[in-house]
Amino acid sequence: MARSIKNILFIMFDQLRFDYLSCAGHPWLHTPHIDALAQKGVRFRQAFVQSPVCGASRMSTYTGRYLRSHGAVWNNVPLKVGELTLGDHLRPLGMRTVLVGKTHMRTDRDGMARLGLAPDSVIGARVAECGFDVFERDDGLRAEGPDGLYDPGSAKTYNEYLRAQGYDSPNPWHDFANSGRNDDGSMASGWFLRHASKPAAIAEEHSETPYLTGRAMAFIEGAGDAPWLLHLSYIKPHWPYIVPAPYHDMYGPNQVLPAMRSEAEREAAHPVFRAFMDGPIGQAFSREDVRRSVIPAYMGLVKQCDDQMGRLFGWLEETGRMRDTMIVLCSDHGDYLGDHWLGEKDLFHDPSVKMPLIIYDPSEAADASRGSVSDALVESIDLAPTFVEAAGGTPPAHILEGRSLLPILHGQTPSEWRSFAISEYDYAMHGAAQALDMPPDRCKLTMLADARWKFVHAEGFRPMLFDLEADPGELTDLGADPGHAAIIEMMYGRLHEWARLPRQRTTMSDEAILARRGKSRRTGIVLGAYDEADIDPEQAQIYSRTPPYDG
Amino acid sequence: MARSIKNILFIMFDQLRFDYLSCAGHPWLHTPHIDALAQKGVRFRQAFVQSPVCGASRMSTYTGRYLRSHGAVWNNVPLKVGELTLGDHLRPLGMRTVLVGKTHMRTDRDGMARLGLAPDSVIGARVAECGFDVFERDDGLRAEGPDGLYDPGSAKTYNEYLRAQGYDSPNPWHDFANSGRNDDGSMASGWFLRHASKPAAIAEEHSETPYLTGRAMAFIEGAGDAPWLLHLSYIKPHWPYIVPAPYHDMYGPNQVLPAMRSEAEREAAHPVFRAFMDGPIGQAFSREDVRRSVIPAYMGLVKQCDDQMGRLFGWLEETGRMRDTMIVLCSDHGDYLGDHWLGEKDLFHDPSVKMPLIIYDPSEAADASRGSVSDALVESIDLAPTFVEAAGGTPPAHILEGRSLLPILHGQTPSEWRSFAISEYDYAMHGAAQALDMPPDRCKLTMLADARWKFVHAEGFRPMLFDLEADPGELTDLGADPGHAAIIEMMYGRLHEWARLPRQRTTMSDEAILARRGKSRRTGIVLGAYDEADIDPEQAQIYSRTPPYDG
Repeated sequence: MARSIKNILFIMFDQLRFDYLSCAGHPWLHTPHIDALAQKGVRFRQAFVQSPVCGASRMSTYTGRYLRSHGAVWNNVPLKVGELTLGDHLRPLGMRTVLVGKTHMRTDRDGMARLGLAPDSVIGARVAECGFDVFERDDGLRAEGPDGLYDPGSAKTYNEYLRAQGYDSPNPWHDFANSGRNDDGSMASGWFLRHASKPAAIAEEHSETPYLTGRAMAFIEGAGDAPWLLHLSYIKPHWPYIVPAPYHDMYGPNQVLPAMRSEAEREAAHPVFRAFMDGPIGQAFSREDVRRSVIPAYMGLVKQCDDQMGRLFGWLEETGRMRDTMIVLCSDHGDYLGDHWLGEKDLFHDPSVKMPLIIYDPSEAADASRGSVSDALVESIDLAPTFVEAAGGTPPAHILEGRSLLPILHGQTPSEWRSFAISEYDYAMHGAAQALDMPPDRCKLTMLADARWKFVHAEGFRPMLFDLEADPGELTDLGADPGHAAIIEMMYGRLHEWARLPRQRTTMSDEAILARRGKSRRTGIVLGAYDEADIDPEQAQIYSRTPPYDG
Repeated sequence: MARSIKNILFIMFDQLRFDYLSCAGHPWLHTPHIDALAQKGVRFRQAFVQSPVCGASRMSTYTGRYLRSHGAVWNNVPLKVGELTLGDHLRPLGMRTVLVGKTHMRTDRDGMARLGLAPDSVIGARVAECGFDVFERDDGLRAEGPDGLYDPGSAKTYNEYLRAQGYDSPNPWHDFANSGRNDDGSMASGWFLRHASKPAAIAEEHSETPYLTGRAMAFIEGAGDAPWLLHLSYIKPHWPYIVPAPYHDMYGPNQVLPAMRSEAEREAAHPVFRAFMDGPIGQAFSREDVRRSVIPAYMGLVKQCDDQMGRLFGWLEETGRMRDTMIVLCSDHGDYLGDHWLGEKDLFHDPSVKMPLIIYDPSEAADASRGSVSDALVESIDLAPTFVEAAGGTPPAHILEGRSLLPILHGQTPSEWRSFAISEYDYAMHGAAQALDMPPDRCKLTMLADARWKFVHAEGFRPMLFDLEADPGELTDLGADPGHAAIIEMMYGRLHEWARLPRQRTTMSDEAILARRGKSRRTGIVLGAYDEADIDPEQAQIYSRTPPYDG
């Protein structure tokens, strides 16, 4: 049987740094299963997320469109009804589009109500779930505070599962899967960074990553013969930073890489950069004791992810599915882990804005590229058109703003590939906006990166600029340097050309435009004709009929 | 009874030039009824349409959003499902939103099918009709060519009406209302400019403008007591340029104003400007015989419109409705009529991009401004927020990109009014794009105008620039003049700031953003906390509960 793409397994990790894999050069963290996938496919080492924050990044991945286009610019901004998502593109090609795990999508309930879309109808359920048919939705965010739950939908099924296993609590997601215990048996919440080195109070097999792997396998096993795309969207290694035994102590402080940061960068920090540094996350991750506590747990979480990849890929191999399943492995953004005096994500240094991206294409056409590493500038919006093309369709360029990666997978060099990558961030809801006293509609950052330069426009401020060749660690911001004015001007030229060409004409394709161009006379719109001699005789005949006549 | 706004009569003419009214200074065309409305209200003489072409201009007016935002960038590009229109904003305020006449809206049938919206459901019908409840839709475009009808929906009811009056033809819209007869009784189609001076072969009372006036009165009479906005959207003085007696010979060649154009402007024309000049419309309207034939007919059409305003306003006065009906009178764009070697619209010289705009507000708060003329830079997207505020609501600034004009109507000077107006045009489907061999996604023109300068960015070309103070006729394009580089740079600065701040976050208001800013800890998202001491005691308590406990 010939190898070809029938199904697509679209794996996304959450907050997985591009360089926390052994295939990407991490010296201590051994990830043999992910490395093996890279050996079978192509690893992209210049892959950028559309926004270094969960919700916005994912909405771009699922719509194939930039933030400026879909408008769901931060966590919990609903994705507006009417935006097309993966399912809208793939279902007409005969491919089911199914979710196991996280999307961080918020439903546009007002928009659905306005259009009379019932959330329990087939179409309404898809609109409410970012276009996916939900096998299991789990955003892994069952946080609780004085104002209530952050997301009442999170981990509901998982919590039921845990309770059935005997984890007796109203919220075992927090109390067992994401917390440890103090020596006296009392709660050691995983929300507190000092507990990161403790083992989570759960048997490893019941923790979130193995659980979701099992759910994915259950879906695949029952999926039957019709083609599918399964979005297997893990919650980890995202916070809370805590992992069950034996992963909790596989790595120690000695394996914590030194932070990529300098006093000079802190002193000369751009105002927006400074506002993030000065926030509680930046302050915490600037502490070495925090890094030494958190990073080994983070590495353990990644190691567990890799082991689950071993389990999953082994099973796919055994069941013959490797022959016809495309596998895409990526993340929604990275994690600063104290680099640049920051924690989490939000800004555009490599640890935050780059994602690991590995694509395995089973088809023979891809044999030429196996095990290769691509330096093409890739964006997460390239995945949607890749999926469409893999499913046998033609990506609609007036809707999907990315480019299919299939040519690269087939060892071809695509013509006129993008010369710079873009990422956007809206910090209007972030505490940094408060510190900077910025109005909600102007908290916009836009990054442009090419092989040499990384440029960040910050609305209302000077830009940032890094020379990736001379300064690969991105420690010296040249944005205020008059010696780099020409580079900055070039980058603004690129930014502005992109900004001047919004992509909202989604209801008519370029091909349809070309087919209609200059053709209005064919339906009788005869403008600028003085008399019959100025037009087609066939048309003149129509307008010369004197009534009554037969219509 | 106190005067106040209960209903809104939103009158739009089609292709009515801003300066073809006596109140705007036309020396021959006397429009006493429109002038009288201006005396009762405010006339805006710096009012710009969002795009100088029917469909795109109207979609901006009805959505309150720029072309870059709604994406329906030219005639027949469907308005995407999900875009909010006037009805979405006004109905929740208790105001019916009803159509009599033209919208030039094309339904996003693919989008409706995707969301399962039936065109015959209440919601589906509104989505299909640009948010209006249709009393009568009539786009007045029953053109017919070798490829069939331009718009099979146009003038259907009107044609039935005409046939009932004895106009016996399959398409009396063309054959009677928009055509005359040659001396031998044969058809003289109104599509041909040489027939413009003939009377249309129809009794004046049955022609389109009186017909739609009557339909509006029928709606109002039957509307009952609930508040309404009626969009009375006339087809005229738009082409075909032909008008019934007695209007066909009220004006003669002696009243045709000289064309505003120069040989120098033709010789030095910007490539895009030249492509439009060189097209059949530009060629035709550059001929003096065409102008002398067409312009008297156009003036007759305007005169007929004014007389119908007399009929309508008189009736509103008699029936007491002037006390509680706001009246807005505008156009969707102008008409070059041979100025600048062009006909019709499409580019940004004043005759094309400016609209007449008169607003009568019956309320006492507006007494201060009656009869005044405003020089505020106004855009057609300002109407939607004006209507929302007039209906008692607060315009949602994250959706509606314009500004309410109510403060100006109340004689106040709004703070931080816009310092420049914007208009956009996409010529991808126009013959000019063929002449220039431009790809469909780059045929974008953007105009910025302030009180002194008018600037047009043309993607792929140098900009155009006019000094409205030194050259009010816009005959000298300074876009290539090195002496104006600083002005051009300033205009690009404005354009780019606007372009960098798209308005697509329509599912969450600025107020909601501010309310959530920095508040994620309130729902338990505790990032950057080393231990309990770093957080609120109430929050610490929640995360310190050791299970089992009561939830």
